[in-house]
Amino acid sequence: MATKGVILSGMRPTGRLHLGHQSVLNNWVRLQEEYDCFFMVADWHALTTGWEESKEIHSNTIEMVADWLATGLNPEKCAIFRQSAILEHAELHLLFSMTTPLSWLERVPTYKDQIQKLGEMGKDINTYGFLGYPLLMAADILIYKATTVPVGEDQIPHVELTRELARRFNHLFKPVFPEPQAIVNKEVAVLPGVDGAKMSKSYHNYIFIGADVEEIKKNVNLMVTDPARIRKTDPGNPDVCVVHKFHRIYNPDVLKGIETECRAGQIGCVACKKQLAGVLEQNLAPIRERREDILAKKGYIEEILQAGEEKARESARKTMEQVREAILGQ
Amino acid sequence: MATKGVILSGMRPTGRLHLGHQSVLNNWVRLQEEYDCFFMVADWHALTTGWEESKEIHSNTIEMVADWLATGLNPEKCAIFRQSAILEHAELHLLFSMTTPLSWLERVPTYKDQIQKLGEMGKDINTYGFLGYPLLMAADILIYKATTVPVGEDQIPHVELTRELARRFNHLFKPVFPEPQAIVNKEVAVLPGVDGAKMSKSYHNYIFIGADVEEIKKNVNLMVTDPARIRKTDPGNPDVCVVHKFHRIYNPDVLKGIETECRAGQIGCVACKKQLAGVLEQNLAPIRERREDILAKKGYIEEILQAGEEKARESARKTMEQVREAILGQ
Repeated sequence: MATKGVILSGMRPTGRLHLGHQSVLNNWVRLQEEYDCFFMVADWHALTTGWEESKEIHSNTIEMVADWLATGLNPEKCAIFRQSAILEHAELHLLFSMTTPLSWLERVPTYKDQIQKLGEMGKDINTYGFLGYPLLMAADILIYKATTVPVGEDQIPHVELTRELARRFNHLFKPVFPEPQAIVNKEVAVLPGVDGAKMSKSYHNYIFIGADVEEIKKNVNLMVTDPARIRKTDPGNPDVCVVHKFHRIYNPDVLKGIETECRAGQIGCVACKKQLAGVLEQNLAPIRERREDILAKKGYIEEILQAGEEKARESARKTMEQVREAILGQ
Repeated sequence: MATKGVILSGMRPTGRLHLGHQSVLNNWVRLQEEYDCFFMVADWHALTTGWEESKEIHSNTIEMVADWLATGLNPEKCAIFRQSAILEHAELHLLFSMTTPLSWLERVPTYKDQIQKLGEMGKDINTYGFLGYPLLMAADILIYKATTVPVGEDQIPHVELTRELARRFNHLFKPVFPEPQAIVNKEVAVLPGVDGAKMSKSYHNYIFIGADVEEIKKNVNLMVTDPARIRKTDPGNPDVCVVHKFHRIYNPDVLKGIETECRAGQIGCVACKKQLAGVLEQNLAPIRERREDILAKKGYIEEILQAGEEKARESARKTMEQVREAILGQ
């Protein structure tokens, strides 16, 4: 396997992924070539804010991992596993809890924000587990001695806390953990939903990674274009057009041409959308086909997960032996 | 095994036990005849307030379990195990954390008391783990589906919280847990230390359960008697005499006679102490001998613990299968 370091990353099992997730996944596919990668289905984390939907975790896991594999994660090159299958994460989380001041968790920037945000949506997540969520995340990362954690901007404070916890443990007991570095994927293309808002399942404005031709067409047709443009000969403003934002990502070669034609009123929105739908279909068809093949093989994803869990468990157990020895001094 | 129910009880591994622990232990010895008993070395709990002394946990465990066995715990009749050997406790603790409101933990009566008390002793235990300690205790109890928990008065609120957690889980997911009953050992004899304060290791006023003849004599001689009594012919007041409190427990048959003689100035403190030392030696000698035999068998306690952990693990795993099924609905 690779030598640049160890990576831990994960996603909560929310079911099928959409195009908004694609840049993160493509980044994972690149990273697996250069690092020892552990990609985690964060099913315990899913309970911190959504235990009411716990019955969906299993099917959501299968759907999500199908997308991971279809996009190009290679189980020969990385470990794909469920967090809940490695009980040692819970043990390390518990051990960290003993030496972590409450104030460290209370001051994590996302903590109060999220409680308020979800509170406004009528959801009370003021639980012990929600407060401890960054500790569990630190355990997820450190148990594999990850050196590198690819994250979004909003998760940088979590990696910072992880580094603090590693330093504290190393200082109090014995040097066991490396201090992981956050890498923020600069290439993350912020993709809008078809309505121009952030693409999100809860906004119903998404296109699934495995979407079929009809879904693609339907959703591209729903995309919001320059509202000031009435006739196709009117000059358009690509800067306010969702279709244009998609061309930028999925059709970069001809982007300049389309932009010029739009501003000059030489290409209509219908034609422009048709072109985008074609390009998206070209992009998604192979993923969709792989996805279907994967799901058609009964038990295949379960096998991949179990194999990944073997790998993950071996690594986690090695670390935990050192952790216990550091604490107990035996 | 027995049929009256399942019992979980435990002690933090603080090393050799003293006579102040004897009534709790004698109670355990009785309970093992009537219940399926799980007796736990609470080594993770020891970290909540004492991770600085983590290096002593191993030897403290051996010394404490030697006392358990010497007092009469029978590993054929009960499971004697280390909490940290059963990772499922940490898993259940984590799962409970997801659905437990922070306020439930903040309002546990011992929480703020202990933080203040230890704070006055210069110890800062304001950690995430200390706040969650009652959740871990609930997981310890419920993972064995304990029906009965022998506790001291101060731990009744913890058992009440455990019952609340069981109800909440059963309601939110599926009925898995019984609601355990606290039984307060009414026969607990509150034994003073030799100085009249509560017997405690930190006060250095204790007599070890496995004390030898010389230690017994020395400590009985240190016992505080009626300070108003100067000559042995002066009438004594047994109500303020530590020796008398020990006679009450270890020498009940002749208690009345001693009391009468003391009040009448017919028995001196020296003779009274000599009699107590003899009775204590009679009581402790067989325990001491068993203790020495047990410790002389190299690896014996480790074997007992591993066998107990097999039993405990089997039971904990069965419960966790039901817990996971209840949450995930598979």
